[in-house]
This record gives sequence, structure tokens and C-alpha cells, in this order.
Amino acid sequence: MLAQAPVVNTPMQFADWTHSISRSVLRQMMAVVSRPGILSFAGGLPAPELFPTADYAEALTHVLATDGRSLQYAPPHQQLKAHIVELMAQRGVTCTQEQVFLTTGAQQGLDVLTTMFLNQGGQVMFEDLVYTGVQQVVAPLRPQILSVSTDLDTGMDVDAVEAYLADGARPAYIYVIPDAHNPLGVSISLEKRKRLVALARHYGVPIIEDDPYGFLYYDGDLERPLRALDDEWVFYLGSFSKILAPALRLGWMIAPEALIPKLTVIKEAGDLESSALTQRAVAAYLDNGHLPGHLATLRQAYGRRRDTMLAALSQHFPAEARWTQPNGGMFIWVELPEQFNTAQLLPIAVEEEKVAFIPGYAFAVLGHHVNNCLRLNFSNCTPEMIQEGVRRLGRVLQRV
Amino acid sequence: MLAQAPVVNTPMQFADWTHSISRSVLRQMMAVVSRPGILSFAGGLPAPELFPTADYAEALTHVLATDGRSLQYAPPHQQLKAHIVELMAQRGVTCTQEQVFLTTGAQQGLDVLTTMFLNQGGQVMFEDLVYTGVQQVVAPLRPQILSVSTDLDTGMDVDAVEAYLADGARPAYIYVIPDAHNPLGVSISLEKRKRLVALARHYGVPIIEDDPYGFLYYDGDLERPLRALDDEWVFYLGSFSKILAPALRLGWMIAPEALIPKLTVIKEAGDLESSALTQRAVAAYLDNGHLPGHLATLRQAYGRRRDTMLAALSQHFPAEARWTQPNGGMFIWVELPEQFNTAQLLPIAVEEEKVAFIPGYAFAVLGHHVNNCLRLNFSNCTPEMIQEGVRRLGRVLQRV
Repeated sequence: MLAQAPVVNTPMQFADWTHSISRSVLRQMMAVVSRPGILSFAGGLPAPELFPTADYAEALTHVLATDGRSLQYAPPHQQLKAHIVELMAQRGVTCTQEQVFLTTGAQQGLDVLTTMFLNQGGQVMFEDLVYTGVQQVVAPLRPQILSVSTDLDTGMDVDAVEAYLADGARPAYIYVIPDAHNPLGVSISLEKRKRLVALARHYGVPIIEDDPYGFLYYDGDLERPLRALDDEWVFYLGSFSKILAPALRLGWMIAPEALIPKLTVIKEAGDLESSALTQRAVAAYLDNGHLPGHLATLRQAYGRRRDTMLAALSQHFPAEARWTQPNGGMFIWVELPEQFNTAQLLPIAVEEEKVAFIPGYAFAVLGHHVNNCLRLNFSNCTPEMIQEGVRRLGRVLQRV
Repeated sequence: MLAQAPVVNTPMQFADWTHSISRSVLRQMMAVVSRPGILSFAGGLPAPELFPTADYAEALTHVLATDGRSLQYAPPHQQLKAHIVELMAQRGVTCTQEQVFLTTGAQQGLDVLTTMFLNQGGQVMFEDLVYTGVQQVVAPLRPQILSVSTDLDTGMDVDAVEAYLADGARPAYIYVIPDAHNPLGVSISLEKRKRLVALARHYGVPIIEDDPYGFLYYDGDLERPLRALDDEWVFYLGSFSKILAPALRLGWMIAPEALIPKLTVIKEAGDLESSALTQRAVAAYLDNGHLPGHLATLRQAYGRRRDTMLAALSQHFPAEARWTQPNGGMFIWVELPEQFNTAQLLPIAVEEEKVAFIPGYAFAVLGHHVNNCLRLNFSNCTPEMIQEGVRRLGRVLQRV
């Protein structure tokens, strides 16, 4: 019967939210600026020459040679969880193995928590300038985004958070990068950390604390994460991407033990489980005691790169420009005088000076205007490249 | 101010859908039956003794030694896509590298497609007995599940599919496992494949074709997948989990090229990207030409295990019992006479005979009743274990 029926040219129907998908601004830019010969401060990439390649290869080889189950489906690896408990202690956080939830990178942690907390059309609270990945995570649920500003010295505007909550807003969660914020490079002051946690408890609003840079600090220890101040309302996300390597796709969450079964069901829907082989190889790498020395190397190298970039900015950027002084992480945020438009400057920088950055608007929620701002990455270039690249950027600015 | 305010004991608020989360039946059972000493036909595990461990270790070592970017964030690896195009050709599917979309296992493909197609409260079409992972994927969107029965010789009831569509139903997608169905072990007949694809085109309803077992066939070639019959409405999901190893967490989708940017944005929200190292290592393994020999080994070993289980069922199960005759994959579905209740039998089997299976109800949607059915896995036990295990199961049945 159907064979005789005329074929109707029905257009394919997608979920409603997909009509608002725009190709990720960041990824689009990355395609442009990743061309050979471009000196790029655009990405959020760690330095590949500092990857612990040989030690990790050894760990992988060892695991594959000795553990016949390492390529199989497997429950989360307890030895890795034990190492993560130790790592968290270095950040001043007390937790148990039962509170450790392994994820396929911290991004998956964001995704899983969003699925657990956020209703279709619900509320979330972000800063005006925010990691783009969290915007992508919430997009399918089309939430109302409550946004607050960020002080470039002390972090998130906690007064604004309190004003929203006092006014009755109950976001599904508040998203925070406590240290070396992406894109701003700022860390939240201790006083604000305490107030944020008190607000979360008082109003019953969970905090997602995204801490990819918490082990990369260059001026002595960072403040303790929010999770050190509260073990019920703060969901901590950690990642091996920046301290070992992104291609591991391995991260973790610290969450109340009672919620682990719920989180497990949600994570299974996403990718069943995180690679048993990677879990075992990272555990073997950590067993061998390689991490402290590796972190010291990263801190020294990245600290020098940060210092080089800050010095170069002073030398080559207009006197009226302002930028953050990150105590860790990978990024410096620059505010140029109002007459500069960084979206318009980018193609000039790329074409004429072969240097790249990310214009500030890529990180803005709700049409927040940051036309005169840019994000610079300092982790993925040598000090020499940083000096040369900032000099080129200075020349671009002089043309305006 | 807040410091003086009384702490309100607000309970944590979760997304509405989470109230229906029940700990995955399958995972709960797996915890019970994975105890040492249990002879298990319960899981969906490949045989670990057949993993290409040494060859994959060599590929990993080679990639880490020669490709400095293998631990970095990276775009999808073209050489792996080229291999997948060749693999698809072996399945009778013509596609281009631009239509290959890499995923963190086929499960992620399901998740990404669900996010792209399914609205909150929309419709999806499943079989009454269906892979549990797809039920977990759709759960947060609380869809209406339209379900159709499955003929144990020819697969999905396509008349029922047509009746729904003719009646006006427009599910976001139809989910199908074309070959060696999980849990049923049945493959869809060619005639039904053609009709399903014609229906999808006619009514404008996408098909998700989940094909984890399509390279594991034991009686000569399988039929070509639905994707060979239509390159617009069929979204094909492939996986390295069953043909190489689950811990790779690597799969692929074949989709219209025009949709790859949309799929990329959705996947990024889930885990940014799939491991660049794993992509390169699998490509290197495939470069070395190891796969055809490995697949031949798997087909021979699993085919023998299937034959052993079928013979043992004839020997030890009641004459009135019926079971599927899978031409591939990992599972046999058994229908016992009505008086048997497999959920009640499982604890007896585990406790008294140290043998395990999955009761049929674990796969049932909408309270579909399959009290007298069970799924048996034959890939993860040696022929000797299979004989012994089925003998034990036969003893359990004799007690009823």
C-alpha cells in the first residue's frame, strides 16, 4: 500500500530548542585562528610540550600488561577515587571516596548536574561573563539566566546574588569558577566565598563549583574552594585535563554520597561509564608519585608565562587599558578603552599580524556588552612567543 | 545581615523528572551477580580474553611516541573517520568522511540524537522490549513512549509502526537495533527493513539505527543496515566497544553532513570531545591491519559459544521453552512456559546454583509483561562454562 502512496517531502523536525543553536562562537574562531603560522592566545589549551607523555605511556603500558580487566566495562576504579581524596586534601577539602563521582571530563559533571537540577524553562545563575561550556549545557532546557557581574579583583558580585535570592529567585544552581576564572582570570575573595556558601545554605540553592585551574597557582596557595566550607550544597568539579592532559577526558565531582546513585543513572545515559583503562592508567601514574613534581613544573612554567604576558602588556598596550592579575590558571582578561571593538580587531590581528585572541563577547550572556574586552591565554605559548605576540597585538591597537 | 538570619532547612530541589529515577534495574542486578563464584550470563560483556590488548598497547605506545598532539584537545581525527568509512563499506553502507561523527561510545550517539530530536513530553517509538540505555536517555524529557511488539524471527512489528504513523503519531524518532537485537537476539528481515525505511521517508520520521553487533555475525553476512537503504532519515550508530574493547569509549554516528555542526554543539555540551589519544590509537591499530583477523577470531569464538548455548538449552531446558536463534551478537532470549517467573527465579539461581541471567522485565517498557522470559549472554563465558551454567539453570527450572 505504502509503495503506491506519494512520497511527501516532509522536512525533518528537530527539538524546538535547536532553532537557537548557533555554531559555537568559540569553535568557529578556533577554526580561523588555528591556521598554521598564527601566534594564538585564543584557545584554552595547556602546553603540549609539558604533557607527562613518557610517564603516562609507562602507566598505560603497565596497566595493559598487568590488568586483564582494564579494557572491559568496569565499575568506577576505587584506587583512583582514593587518589582524588588525597588531591582534594591538597586543596583543603575533606571528602571520602564515597563522595567522589568520576566523570568524562568536568564538562560531563556540568551536564549531569544540569540534568539533575534544572527543569525545562527553570532558572540558573551565572556571571555576565561565563565559561561558554555551561551556556551550551543549559541551552536545551532554555532556562531563564539570572546573571550577576564580576569584580575583577574579588570575583562574583555576591550582593547581586543575595538580591536575587532575597527577591525570591530560586535558581536550579549557581555556577562559579572559584579560582583563576575563565575568561576573567580572577579568584573569589575569602569573604565572598563565605557569603556565597551562607547564601546557598540559607536559600537552599546548590552551587556548582567548577575548579579546573585550582592546582595551577603561581603566587603561593589559593584560597580553599567553596566545597571546603560546605559539604551539602556545594558540588565540586575537578579535572585532569589541565594538570595532566585533556585527551584523558577524565574528571571528577565531589557530591553528597546520597546523590551518587542518581548521578550514576544520569551519567550512564550519557556515556555508560568513563574509560576503565584511563581510570586505571591515571591511578597508576598517580601511584608512581609523578604528580607533585609535574605540578611544580607546570606552576613554574605557567607562572613565568603569566609574568611575561603581564610585563608585555604593560610595555605594548595603551596606558588606558586594564587587565586582570590572575594568581593561577591560563587566562588574562583585558579591558581596552571604549573606542576599541575587539570583534572588529580580531580579523585584522589574524590577517595582518598573524596573532589571535578571543573577543570578550564570546563569553557574554544575555547580550552583556563587552565590545572592548578580550581574553588572552598564556599557557600555550612560550615566553618568547608571548613577548612577540603581545608586541604584535600592541601594533594592531595602534592602528585604531 | 545574613549571619543573623535563621538558617532555613530547605530541602534540595531537583528537576521534576528525577522523582521517577529508579536505580537502573540492570546495574542493581549486575552488582548482585558480579560476586565472585557466580557463573554469569547476565551482563552484556565481550570476552576479555579476546581483547586485542597487545596490539592496542602497541598502537597506543606508537601514537604517544610519535604524535606530540595526541594528549591535547584536538578536532576529530580524519584518519579514524577514513577507517570508519571503510568499515561501513564492509556493512554495505556508502558514506563519506564528512558524514562520520565520532562519539564517546554509541550511548553518546543516542544521547546527542535525543537532545537534537526530542522535545519535553514528545513522542518516541520503541519496541516493547528494548535496550535499557535508550530508556535512560529519554527519561529526563518524560516522553510518551509508543511501543510495538517484536516478532522473534523477523524483528520489529512494522505493521504496528505503520498503524501508529497512519493514525497521526509523529515520534521524534524510531529506535531500532537491526541485527542481533539486545535483548532479543533477533535480526530484522530484509522486507521489514525496506518497509521501515519507506515509512520513515513517507512520514518524515527519523530512525536511530543502533548497530553495536553488526560486525559480529556467525552464519555468513548479515543483511545490510537500514542506513544502506536511506542516507537522509536513518541515523546509524556504530561502536568499537564490542569489536575492540568497551574501555575505549569510542563509537561513531553516520548522519547527514548538514547536521554535523548541530550535532557537534550538542556533543560539546556533553563532554567537549572524545579522547584525541583514543581516536589516534584506534586509527593506528586499524592502520596496522589488525582488525580483519581480530573480527574473524571473535566471530569464530562467539559463534562457537552461541552454538554451545543453543545446544545446552535443548538439552537442559523444558521442552515447552522457546528461544531465539541469533545469527550474531551476544544474546539469546528465552521464553519459558507461563508458570515460570524469572524475577523470582533469579535469587534462587544465584544463591543455590551460583548462576545468573537477566529477567526479561528489566527490558520492558510500559509495564509490558514478560514474567516468563530471560536474557542470556553467551559472549562472556567459555563453552565449558556455558554448558555448566545452562545445566545449572535447567536444575533451577526443575524446582518450579
